[in-house]
Formats: sequence, structure tokens, C-alpha cells
Amino acid sequence: MTRLSSFVRGEWHTPSEGGSALVNPSTEETLATTSTKGIDFGAALSFARDKGGPALRAMTFAQRGELLRRMSRAIHDKRDELLGVGMANGGNTRSDAKFDVDGASGTLAAYADLAATLGDAQILVDGDALQLGRGARLFGQHVRTSRHGVAVHVNAFNFPAWGLAEKAACAILAGMPIVSKPATSTALLAHRLSEVLVASADIPAGVFSFVCGSAGDMLDHLGPSDVLAFTGSSDTAATLRAHKAFVERAARINVEADSLNSAVLGPDVDEGGEAMNLFIGDVAREMTQKTGQKCTAFRRLYVPKDKVDVVIERLGERLGAVKVGDPTADGVTMGPVSTAQQLADVRAGVKKLEACAKIVFGSVAPLDGIGAPAGKGYFVGPVLLRCDAPAPGDAVHSHEVFGPVATVIAYDGTAAHASALVAAGGGGLVASVYSDDRAFTRDMILGVAPYTGRVTLGSEKIAGQALPPGMALPYLLHGGPGRAGGGEELGGVRGMYLYMQRTALQGDRAVLEALTGKK
Amino acid sequence: MTRLSSFVRGEWHTPSEGGSALVNPSTEETLATTSTKGIDFGAALSFARDKGGPALRAMTFAQRGELLRRMSRAIHDKRDELLGVGMANGGNTRSDAKFDVDGASGTLAAYADLAATLGDAQILVDGDALQLGRGARLFGQHVRTSRHGVAVHVNAFNFPAWGLAEKAACAILAGMPIVSKPATSTALLAHRLSEVLVASADIPAGVFSFVCGSAGDMLDHLGPSDVLAFTGSSDTAATLRAHKAFVERAARINVEADSLNSAVLGPDVDEGGEAMNLFIGDVAREMTQKTGQKCTAFRRLYVPKDKVDVVIERLGERLGAVKVGDPTADGVTMGPVSTAQQLADVRAGVKKLEACAKIVFGSVAPLDGIGAPAGKGYFVGPVLLRCDAPAPGDAVHSHEVFGPVATVIAYDGTAAHASALVAAGGGGLVASVYSDDRAFTRDMILGVAPYTGRVTLGSEKIAGQALPPGMALPYLLHGGPGRAGGGEELGGVRGMYLYMQRTALQGDRAVLEALTGKK
Repeated sequence: MTRLSSFVRGEWHTPSEGGSALVNPSTEETLATTSTKGIDFGAALSFARDKGGPALRAMTFAQRGELLRRMSRAIHDKRDELLGVGMANGGNTRSDAKFDVDGASGTLAAYADLAATLGDAQILVDGDALQLGRGARLFGQHVRTSRHGVAVHVNAFNFPAWGLAEKAACAILAGMPIVSKPATSTALLAHRLSEVLVASADIPAGVFSFVCGSAGDMLDHLGPSDVLAFTGSSDTAATLRAHKAFVERAARINVEADSLNSAVLGPDVDEGGEAMNLFIGDVAREMTQKTGQKCTAFRRLYVPKDKVDVVIERLGERLGAVKVGDPTADGVTMGPVSTAQQLADVRAGVKKLEACAKIVFGSVAPLDGIGAPAGKGYFVGPVLLRCDAPAPGDAVHSHEVFGPVATVIAYDGTAAHASALVAAGGGGLVASVYSDDRAFTRDMILGVAPYTGRVTLGSEKIAGQALPPGMALPYLLHGGPGRAGGGEELGGVRGMYLYMQRTALQGDRAVLEALTGKK
Repeated sequence: MTRLSSFVRGEWHTPSEGGSALVNPSTEETLATTSTKGIDFGAALSFARDKGGPALRAMTFAQRGELLRRMSRAIHDKRDELLGVGMANGGNTRSDAKFDVDGASGTLAAYADLAATLGDAQILVDGDALQLGRGARLFGQHVRTSRHGVAVHVNAFNFPAWGLAEKAACAILAGMPIVSKPATSTALLAHRLSEVLVASADIPAGVFSFVCGSAGDMLDHLGPSDVLAFTGSSDTAATLRAHKAFVERAARINVEADSLNSAVLGPDVDEGGEAMNLFIGDVAREMTQKTGQKCTAFRRLYVPKDKVDVVIERLGERLGAVKVGDPTADGVTMGPVSTAQQLADVRAGVKKLEACAKIVFGSVAPLDGIGAPAGKGYFVGPVLLRCDAPAPGDAVHSHEVFGPVATVIAYDGTAAHASALVAAGGGGLVASVYSDDRAFTRDMILGVAPYTGRVTLGSEKIAGQALPPGMALPYLLHGGPGRAGGGEELGGVRGMYLYMQRTALQGDRAVLEALTGKK
């Protein structure tokens, strides 16, 4: 049995014991084990801080971008192998695995491009210089400089490749060394990807560390200049936020957690129109891609009362074509969920939703996956529910089922009603509005933006160019308020801010201009 | 005895019991009492959220600016009365009280000016629009919208007027109603100021509430759209951060806490030069203004070894001229600290510093204040200490004495040494560099910026125009990492961000341009 190693203090550390098992969720075969027993986390973080930090800060943004480019290429060069690992350990279809792996190399490449535009500088200039007094010499200028600490990245099980890469891209370009920890259940892909990066991307010592298995006492070693970026459940987030590192020592924490993402169909949308086709296509994809295990997947589908029946009918046709099974088997279009626990949670979650909604397509009954051993694998088919009398506080507005499950929720066709219901989700990553009515679209944007990290618009005119709402883009923010954790990732240069300190400089204009390269 | 009332749910609520006493720190006479017994905090916050929020969000930035202008004028119109209250309850000299009260009206006026530049909009546009695909229609645009909650402001005892006003200016312009709570010991000024605002500033119902006394169970009622902005001690900050409102419900919290602010004298500065004069003058002011009770006051004075003696000599001359007493008595230039507890803390704190430094001017021995009853009042004279062998972790780098106390600390004259010592303070609000050597100045900025919210530069050329380092300016950020709490206030438009949600919009370019007024 392979014992997955960790990369700390510039070397691979293979555990002396077996530890937690990683399985193939289609076959339930054990693939490898992880353990961090014997790792000195204090020393691991110090090595990153003291070796990696200065090395990275000595590089210009453009040089850091070259590093990100090497990382992107290293991943792309091993693409086929990495896709295979995602299919085996993540239950991904090949298409799902591409979404993750190509997302990783693509995000690194996008930040490499951004780095080139930032050039030879090492600090970011924030806003314009301001004259502070009556004289012409005293000026103010805000800048951002790299924090002198280490960034710990704790990733979710659903995107082992992209999650590692998108956080790494922002932190490394910002000048902070990283220690990246994948979720244990799907760590095989992150582990292989880390091996590839260490072997092929020529990363300066201490800039990249990888911890495979339990985080042990790592947080106890975080100080005021350090950062934790976490993606995962709200419950874990709550535990992390209460840690002394953040409560007492003011280390920074960024959380990306649960989200009951919404899609709102406008009252103007015709049954046969392009906006409707876009809506149906997006919903079917978001429900089934990665078996619904995306933090950005739609959970709530708000549909005007008079269109609920037709939407359910059309979605039923699409969902009926889904073939569930081992992703390596021919014809399979949706794999299993990633773990036995996930499967149990999906089943329990649908039961919760049934308190206010009824199943109108599919079921959570046990299912033999195509090409999988009989009785094995964490398979569940897509499930669509219907809720005709939604209310804030009910299950569809408070419980996220992290699987191929969504609920069609009737609303009265007004932006006010739809906005209030979207808001009742308590803060989310993505809300999508499908309408050709500009006034409705505008009211929806203004109504839901305070509760949402990203709002996507679908309409007839945009249908041919629209990107999937569930795709986090490197140049747009990813994160959301409230239930979604209150964090911000990506968004181009914005994603670097978590890893930098903003400082107001106040003094002689000429000195400030020389520093910021404005003169 | 006056029982100070609170303003909640649109009306003044006078407590039915006496509660905590507010005293005159020069005479120890009780001036008033506070209690929040009987206030329904849940209902108070709901009123602000449900009445004040929509009223404020319906206003444009320019209209909110007019409200801030009325608030500024209302305060300025009662300036003399308010100065008197600050002198009586805060131990402020008239000059100290002006710093607080004029700071309040000035910051409100500065934000009113900013509001005018934001015009008729209600959302902030964040960065440029981005083309997302190959087609010309699909664009991305980041915006910020007002959060649909209430902003609770918990202020420190040292700036009852400015603290209330600077937080109010940012929140109200951003579109969030506020509930403002002063520190009890000096609440008389905030109370009178609130009476003035309610009576004269024509504030829409629910936009402004004022809680005088204990915060009771207020935090239990904070939800994911709400904000807490806190200024005070690190210990209280730690308690607040661990509250479920933030840990579980992801309400936002901004903390501005302790700070061991530094002043660094460059190795190039001549004894008789203007930069030296500026340094000496700034240190003397920062040590004694508001009796050293400013979160931005210098605590650590880094001086090249060979200039330590002359600096101590010159500071001794300035500090020897300080007249301590009741601020209403003739000739007094420094009042008492604000409470008996503060006095005890200053005495205990100096003792702590003596573990690594020795007193070279003054003492914390009991002192009769000029014009005060014998044996009464919380008086302490300025105290200067000297530390010749500083080290990270020693008391001068870890303990803030919140009074007229600072330590001259020898360093080797290099920017590397001074930067490392500044950083050893664990994160601060302000660091000031005095030098005419551009390379030294640049190295100091780069060395200390990651640990500091604001860096001020003093030099011969700027001496005539420089502003006091301890003065927080409306257009420059106030806050700092680590020990200083990790928060950001003010900074012009930046101060509004705490109260707004940033959202990425993704869709038809024409729709986005219409929304943001770019077309």
C-alpha cells in the first residue's frame, strides 16, 4: 500500500505508519494511505517563513510570474496522468477531471499573465497619491507589501488540483510561501500534482510545502504575519475561526464555505427561447458536473409559478439521460460522490429538503453504477425537488445538499420576491439571473449583490458566449458573505490582497514617487 | 445625579437604575451614571436594520454626504460646550479636547466632501470592466453594494467624539445604519454629542442609535449581514472575535487595538538639524497629548547608539516643561489619565518596562495635580525610559503603557536593525522615520510596511509641512496588522468597504454598463 508522503523543509517525508485510507469511490478499493505523524509543523512553517519568504520577496512580480508559468506547464505536461488520478480517487468523469486539472494549470497561467503586467515591481500601488496639506510636498500614498509570514492553504475534497493551484497562484504572486494541505479523502491527485511541481517547476526552497494528512498542531504555530485560507464546511470553518491564532494573535483567515447558490428564471423568459435553453442547460450541468460536488453548483432554482411545470419537465428530460457509474466505464456521464460519508449526507440532506419540498425526479435509493462491482461504490442519481410555498428558514433555504440535487422553487414573478428568497439563503457564492428584461435584471442584481460573491447574467443575446455559472474565473472574485464564509479569492490582483499588508505612506512627495516608480 | 440615556428605536431611553459612574478624573467627582437595563437589544438592532437601512440605501452617496455635512455642522455649532465636556469627563486639556471634537466634525466634513465626488450613485464600481471571452459581449465588472444589516460601533475611552464620528462617517456613507456605543468611563462627551446629532442633524429614523452603558446581549443578535467595528484593548478584541456572531455566523468584525508605535531616527540626522527638531517635537507631543492616551502615540523611540544621550537630554528639556494638573486650571499643559484603572495600569506598565529599560526622566510616583484637590485625581507625569540592549520579546516590544510614557531604544544605525526591532512589536498602527537619507528611508519603508498600517516620513524638506504622526487622517488608512488588530478604518473610500459587499458581475456588457453608469 502506498503511503503518501509530505513535502516539508525542502524534502519528502514518508510516514512511518499507515494512517487514513483513500479509496476509489466507484469500487471502494483502497488506493493509498496518509499520515503526518512525525512531522514537526513548527519547523515546517519556520522553514517556509525563513527560507521561502525571503527568496520569494527578492523576486519581482514578473519573476514570480515565471515561476507560476513553470508550475502551470509542469501540470499541463502531466495532464493525462493527472486526469487518470482524478478519475480513480475523485470519482470524476474525464470531463470532471479536466475541469479540475485544466482549471489548475489555467489559473496558474492566468496569474502568470497578470504578473507580467505588474512587471519589475515588488510592491503594489493602491490608488492615487494625495496632497495632504496646503504645501506641495506633503503627500499620501497607499501601497501593499508582501506579508512576512507563511500562508497555510487547507483545501476541500472536491477540487484537489484547482483548489491547490488557485490559492498557490495568488499567494506566490503576492510574495508569500505556502503550505498546502488537501482534504485527505481525495489527496491522491494533490499529492501527484505536488510531486510534479517539486520535480519540474524549479520552485525555490521553502516556497512550496505540501502536507498530506492531518494538520496536527499546525495552527498553533501561526502568528500575526501568517495567513490561513480555508475551503470546506461551515462547521470546520467555525472551529478554525475560534482558534487562538486568529482570536488572540490576529493571524488572517479567509473562509470559503457552504453556499446555497441560486438560479432565477425571469418572468419574461419564453418557454422556447434561448434564455430558457441556457437556463435548462446550465441547471443540468451544474446539478451533475462533479456529481454536484461543487461549491458553486446551483441548489435553488427560482421559477415563476406558471413555468414550474415546464421547467420540471424539461429538466427531467435532461436528467433522465444521465448515466451513473464508474467514470472509466463506457458511456458513463456522472460518477459517484467522493466518499461514503458524502453519500450518507446526500441521502440525509434530501430527507431534510422533503420537509418543505417533494421529489419530482429521481431518488436517493441505492444504485448499482455502470461498470462498478455490484453493491459497491458511492453512487446516487440526480434528484430534483419542487417547493411551491418557500419561506425563509425552511430547509431549501438553510440546508446544502452537496450532491446532484436541486429544488425548483416557485416565486411570484417579481424581482422583490426572488431577491428576498435568494437573500434568505444567508449569503452565497453565486446567483444567476436569466432574463431579457433589463429592469428585472437590474433589480435582481441590486437585490442579491449584497448577499452574493458573484452574479452571472444569462440572456438571449449572451447565450452563445456565456460561461458556466459554476466556473470560478481567475479574474473574477470567488467567495461570498455569510454562509459562504465571508472570504474573497481570485479576482485577478484582488486575490493577492489576502497575502499583503496595505499601508498608508505619508511624507515627501518625491520620496514616495521614487518608491512607487511614478517618477 | 444625571442618568445618561440611550437612543434606540428612534427614542431616548432613560435607565431606571443608576448603574456605572462616570467621574471627573481631575477631581474624582461623579458626573453621571450609565445603565442599559431594560433595553431590548434585539429590537434595537432590528429597528436600525429595518427602518434605517432602507432609508439610507434609498439615498444617493451625495445625499448621504449632505447628512454627514449636517452632522459635522451640528457638532461644530456646539463646539465650546463639547470641549468643556471633554475637559471635565476626559481629563483633556482644551487642546486635547479640540483634537477629539474638531477631529469628529472634520472627519464628517471630509466624508461629506468625498460623498460629493461619488455623486448620484448608490453602488461603487471596483476596477475596470473586463472582457471575459472571445466575443465582445461577455464582460465582468466588480461592484460594491451596501450590506443589508446594522453596523455596531464600540469605541474606546480616549476619543469619545472622534471615535464615534469617524466610524459613523464611513458606515453612513456606505449605506449602513449604526448603533454606536462609547466606552462607559468617558461616555459623557459621546452622549452630549449624540443628543446634538439627534436634535439638529435631521437623521432619518433608524440610521443612528446610541447605546450608553453595557452592550448587554447585543452581539447575540448580530447576523451575517451585520458588522462590528471595535476599538479597544487586544484582550477585549479576543473575546469579541470568539463570539458566535463572527465564528459561526460570519458577521464581519474590524478591530483596532493595541499598538507599540515607533519613531526611528536615521543615522544621518544631525543634532542641530531640522529633522532632529521635528523628531524631538513630535515625540514630546505624542508622549503628552491626551496624556499619552492615543492608540497612535509613540511608545518606542529607536535612536542610533551615538545619539541616545543627546536625544534623552533634549527630550528631558521638553518634558520638564510639562505642567500636570486639572485642565481647567491656568497653565496646565497635561491632564490626568482618564480613570483610576488607567493610572494603575500605567504604574504597573512602567514597572514591566523596567525589566529591560531604566527610567531617565520622570517617575510614576503619586503627584498632586495643579488646581486639583489634594490627593485627588489620576495624575502621572511624563516618563522617559532608556533601553540599550533591545531584543524581540522584551517588555518594550511587547507591553503597551497607555500613558505619557516612551522608551529611547538604541539601535546600530542600520535600517535592517531598526526594521527588525520595529517588526518585533508584532504589528502596529504607525511607524515614523526621520531621515534625509533616501536609501535609509526607502529601506525602512520596505522593512516596516508589512507590519504597519501607516508610515510617516519626517525630513528637513518636509519639516515645515509635516502633520503630527499621531493624527489619523480621513483620507489615509487607520489600523494595522497583528497586535494592532488587523483592521482598516478611514482611508477615504477604503473606509466604506467594511460596510459593503464586493460582488463580481458577469454578463452582457451593455447591461453592466447601464448599471454602473459607464454608458
